[in-house]
Amino acid sequence: MSMHQRRLDLKNGCVDLSHGAGGRAMAQLIAGLFHEAFGNEWLARGNDQSAFDVAAGRMVMTTDGYVVSPLFFPGGNIGSLAVHGTVNDIAMAGARPLYLSASFIIEEGFPFSDLKRIADAMGEAAREAGIAIITGDTKVVERGKADGVFISTAGVGVLPEGLDLSADKAKPGDRVLLSGSLGDHGVAIMSRRQNLTFDTEIISDSASLHGLVADMVAAGGDGIRLMRDPTRGGLAATMNEIAQQSNLGFRLQEDAIRVKPAVAAACELLGLDPLHVANEGKLIAVVASEAAAAVLAAMKAHPLGRDAADIGTAVSDDHRFVQMVTSFGGGRIVDWLSGEQLPRIC
Amino acid sequence: MSMHQRRLDLKNGCVDLSHGAGGRAMAQLIAGLFHEAFGNEWLARGNDQSAFDVAAGRMVMTTDGYVVSPLFFPGGNIGSLAVHGTVNDIAMAGARPLYLSASFIIEEGFPFSDLKRIADAMGEAAREAGIAIITGDTKVVERGKADGVFISTAGVGVLPEGLDLSADKAKPGDRVLLSGSLGDHGVAIMSRRQNLTFDTEIISDSASLHGLVADMVAAGGDGIRLMRDPTRGGLAATMNEIAQQSNLGFRLQEDAIRVKPAVAAACELLGLDPLHVANEGKLIAVVASEAAAAVLAAMKAHPLGRDAADIGTAVSDDHRFVQMVTSFGGGRIVDWLSGEQLPRIC
Repeated sequence: MSMHQRRLDLKNGCVDLSHGAGGRAMAQLIAGLFHEAFGNEWLARGNDQSAFDVAAGRMVMTTDGYVVSPLFFPGGNIGSLAVHGTVNDIAMAGARPLYLSASFIIEEGFPFSDLKRIADAMGEAAREAGIAIITGDTKVVERGKADGVFISTAGVGVLPEGLDLSADKAKPGDRVLLSGSLGDHGVAIMSRRQNLTFDTEIISDSASLHGLVADMVAAGGDGIRLMRDPTRGGLAATMNEIAQQSNLGFRLQEDAIRVKPAVAAACELLGLDPLHVANEGKLIAVVASEAAAAVLAAMKAHPLGRDAADIGTAVSDDHRFVQMVTSFGGGRIVDWLSGEQLPRIC
Repeated sequence: MSMHQRRLDLKNGCVDLSHGAGGRAMAQLIAGLFHEAFGNEWLARGNDQSAFDVAAGRMVMTTDGYVVSPLFFPGGNIGSLAVHGTVNDIAMAGARPLYLSASFIIEEGFPFSDLKRIADAMGEAAREAGIAIITGDTKVVERGKADGVFISTAGVGVLPEGLDLSADKAKPGDRVLLSGSLGDHGVAIMSRRQNLTFDTEIISDSASLHGLVADMVAAGGDGIRLMRDPTRGGLAATMNEIAQQSNLGFRLQEDAIRVKPAVAAACELLGLDPLHVANEGKLIAVVASEAAAAVLAAMKAHPLGRDAADIGTAVSDDHRFVQMVTSFGGGRIVDWLSGEQLPRIC
């Protein structure tokens, strides 16, 4: 549509209501900003949907909304986070991510320059993950009816033949593996929100984990019962979810769970428990004890699993409690977050 | 997770920030409201993604964000609209919709009772369409940072073997078929927004069109060049998009395009051109002239295509103009909407 193409003023321009109205301004925004950033053959076709070939087999689908505040934070922005998060939800099934969709809800007045940084980060995260954002949608709401930009991504992926991870396969004696240290994402967001600075900058761990997962599946196969990424609600919520779904209890070793000193210090300052803080580049795997050593070795050999550790074991427990055993041998129940909240962490 | 299940107060309760925080309150909201409304085996598993079998072939994926205001309108609400819209984007490729995802961004303080009406309408629309909402996400933002609820749906579907609709296949002489009267959805929204009442209530045409599409594909096969649903921007924007993508001009017959008398009257009152007003249950098909009669007959035989009409023809035109020929033989160019806007119509 070269005839109607005017350049967007990406430096000084802003999104207005016409950019969501289905007319020429919207076509210009989509072509000039999103297609530019995501650049692929599907979007270039300009259809309201995109087509791709699939082999016979088993696929997975997932979606996530992103409302993180602030939109830009150390280690990423809402765009990279949206790609990583959706890739990870696919990967947690053991699947290989293929294609993403992206729906943007934008507040009137949002600067093109910020939108471009976000879209560029999405495009880069997608290319790094070896996937494509093949379809999208843009809506604009009046000033004061949203908060900058919200992004909802959905994704599809393909499962390796025969792989069927499921919480109900977990058994007493299974090991719990954690891929790295806790709390980096949530603390990076909260400290930016509170305008805190530390000697060591705390950077979000936001990353695509499907490469790590592929290595784990190659090493452990069916020995992996389930995987989960401890995002909102942190390790505490995720382990309680797993306990409910598997009908088991868990005993975790406190001294096996790593929290970086700077993150621990920030948590103390902010009154947060690292077990409840969101992560965006970590995973928990429940693994049959006989496969645990091989899977842990595969994790440690991957850049995103260098600090992986065996943090505990599944136990038979009608109460489905998650217990933390301290280094002194004491124990406590790790509950879901209930009172306090960390809104808009992702 | 029966142990932790308290009943939500669906009558008087409201969404608060804890319902988006990844803890127990969120689990309760999801189980007590969304699972209840969407009820299917996938959601019951409680994973962050859902798996399904596919045969070898070609699939399509699409997404849309919904920010319609008001949330409830004659003929539907944001929930039914979100399902219909995504089903239709899949159907416009000639594909059969299979599975949907749904991402909710909810403003703190939003009543559970409204959320339940919306979720119930989504569940009902999905069941009517023979599809399932298999995965979802819920985020909550602070009061004043959204407007009630925004929904982003994504969907996947499967293409009949060999079918590849594409604008670049359109040729001069192809016919333009329209499935029914224009403007119902947009006028239903705008009159509700302006608190206008008419003798005849104007009801949104929001509906799933994949059944109509299947009948059209059975009748016309490869003779169908492309289909498009004239949503935001109306028939005018959609025909201009098709003109750009097909590198053709179009000549439409004004007297072949139906607008219900009540809709025409409301448009006059509201200062709207029905050609620019959104539809949510109509489609445009560009069809080879030799297949047009059969496809039109199939449309008329379907409840959602009863008022279908042949409204014009594709012509060779370097300017890719969409022209309207009036009943008196005069002509005018139908341009995209540019100045005025109808924000948040879907």
